[in-house]
Amino acid sequence: MALPAEFSLIARHFAPLAGDGGLGLTDDAAIVTPPPGRDLVITADAMVAGVHFLPHEPAENVARKLLRVNLSDIAAMGAVPLYYLLTLSTPRGLPDAWFAAFAGGLAADQTRYNIALLGGDTTSTPGPITVSVTMFGHVAPGTALRRSGARAGDDLWVTGIVGDGVLGLMALRGECADPDGTLAARYRLPEPRLGLHLHGIAHAAMDISDGLVQDAGHLARASGVALVLNIDNVPLSLGGRAAGSDFVASGTAGGDDYELLLAVPPENKAALRASAAKSGVPVTRIGRFAEGNPDVRAVDATGTHVALGQGGWSHF
Amino acid sequence: MALPAEFSLIARHFAPLAGDGGLGLTDDAAIVTPPPGRDLVITADAMVAGVHFLPHEPAENVARKLLRVNLSDIAAMGAVPLYYLLTLSTPRGLPDAWFAAFAGGLAADQTRYNIALLGGDTTSTPGPITVSVTMFGHVAPGTALRRSGARAGDDLWVTGIVGDGVLGLMALRGECADPDGTLAARYRLPEPRLGLHLHGIAHAAMDISDGLVQDAGHLARASGVALVLNIDNVPLSLGGRAAGSDFVASGTAGGDDYELLLAVPPENKAALRASAAKSGVPVTRIGRFAEGNPDVRAVDATGTHVALGQGGWSHF
Repeated sequence: MALPAEFSLIARHFAPLAGDGGLGLTDDAAIVTPPPGRDLVITADAMVAGVHFLPHEPAENVARKLLRVNLSDIAAMGAVPLYYLLTLSTPRGLPDAWFAAFAGGLAADQTRYNIALLGGDTTSTPGPITVSVTMFGHVAPGTALRRSGARAGDDLWVTGIVGDGVLGLMALRGECADPDGTLAARYRLPEPRLGLHLHGIAHAAMDISDGLVQDAGHLARASGVALVLNIDNVPLSLGGRAAGSDFVASGTAGGDDYELLLAVPPENKAALRASAAKSGVPVTRIGRFAEGNPDVRAVDATGTHVALGQGGWSHF
Repeated sequence: MALPAEFSLIARHFAPLAGDGGLGLTDDAAIVTPPPGRDLVITADAMVAGVHFLPHEPAENVARKLLRVNLSDIAAMGAVPLYYLLTLSTPRGLPDAWFAAFAGGLAADQTRYNIALLGGDTTSTPGPITVSVTMFGHVAPGTALRRSGARAGDDLWVTGIVGDGVLGLMALRGECADPDGTLAARYRLPEPRLGLHLHGIAHAAMDISDGLVQDAGHLARASGVALVLNIDNVPLSLGGRAAGSDFVASGTAGGDDYELLLAVPPENKAALRASAAKSGVPVTRIGRFAEGNPDVRAVDATGTHVALGQGGWSHF
């Protein structure tokens, strides 16, 4: 009996990526023994062609970005990544080369981040390419960093540079200059901030995906504290500085950046700087949590209130 | 700052379904302590409107079927279900009532199968509704039932009735009579065969989703043994018997049934029957594994060879 093409596709492109518990992707489910004495951190993120990536984006980049947006959530919990499951819905007739390139992207980032494939599903769709990953990480019990731990008096810190993700998308659409391609690269292949030791240093953490202002608001609300954002302290690239004086306040800056927001008590400032230096990740203080209405407001370098826009991303 | 509609939708419809580790669906990831001393069994299945369900299928049924096709994989490993993550890609403008009904379906089957929601993702799509679940179960270490354990001399058993799933789909399309709606009901809401004690009884197991002939072939190949299917022993409903004498041999029968195929040594026949009786699941012997070319062939009640078609489902 000849096997349907679906099984050949899985055997050729995805089975070589399977980790120990994945059983060569030939069984009904994966079987894993969780790391003893550790908690599991589990997240899922989907991406749709034309919504989360440009329709003609190379398949290798789609695969790598899919892993990285999920790894960013693992990083935001202070966890170490382990393995993942993948579901892939693709139009009939998508060439084999697309799957080969997609699997090549997965392979590259599996090596880079020391993770393996456990299983998943492949289906056809009459719609756009739709891909989804469930990612697993592990942490010592009770040490996962939640959004709800920020306290009045904590400083708000951010890793890296804010705003290049959304500018990269604009550049790829021809709406923004990007002479050396760095903005587009930031949009296409964000760098999850794994490896930053934060336990005992940060009270709360989350990653920025929808926009700095919107996501900082989530942190404030989850923690039940007010947040004052020092808008002029937000670290921007040259491209970000060129994007206009209201780039950060408008709410669009930060979308697709996958930098981390961290709530850190002032007495842990030196420990944070040491941890950041050790892993080579820049960190910048951009605000402070305070008693009050659990929401975010902004001031400029002179302390003057700045109105915030609602430029963050929503799907509905 | 007003929150985007996406967060309101999650808070209203999905947060009430969250289990302990789901953190109210407000954090970057779920945090769970795996059951101590147990292995985790993990599977993922996606469903696309127009491919896996009819475009106007009630949202409650879509949700319940999505959970059940995943629970069927947990059942096929002999595991106990625990929790799941959900990703949902829906067209902009889908009415709130659709989400309410979808969440209602999840709630009904969460109670029925004692599972909880841990997290996931909601996105928009310019294409059809696309839903995906990653489902977790647990088993005692080393006791998960794999596809590869069948040995020459084992009998092949099947749970329940074969063929009503694909006939139900045909009935919903008006291609097949279904006066009392039982066939359509089997297609819409399959019953995962959880709770059947199989450890120490079956050597191998898998669930039937693509078609009996194709899936039995997977079991034979994974185990490296030949399989002779007694085609006239395959348990059919009245509707199945009316579907024509080549219904089983054509390969279409069994698609969307989610019954279990079990490889059981003859000496465990009484134990299997006792386990099946205890959980109220009928089981029928429909073949035997033998030394030889790892593939499936069929004989009728007189022992005459019957040619097998390739009617099973493939996405590519």
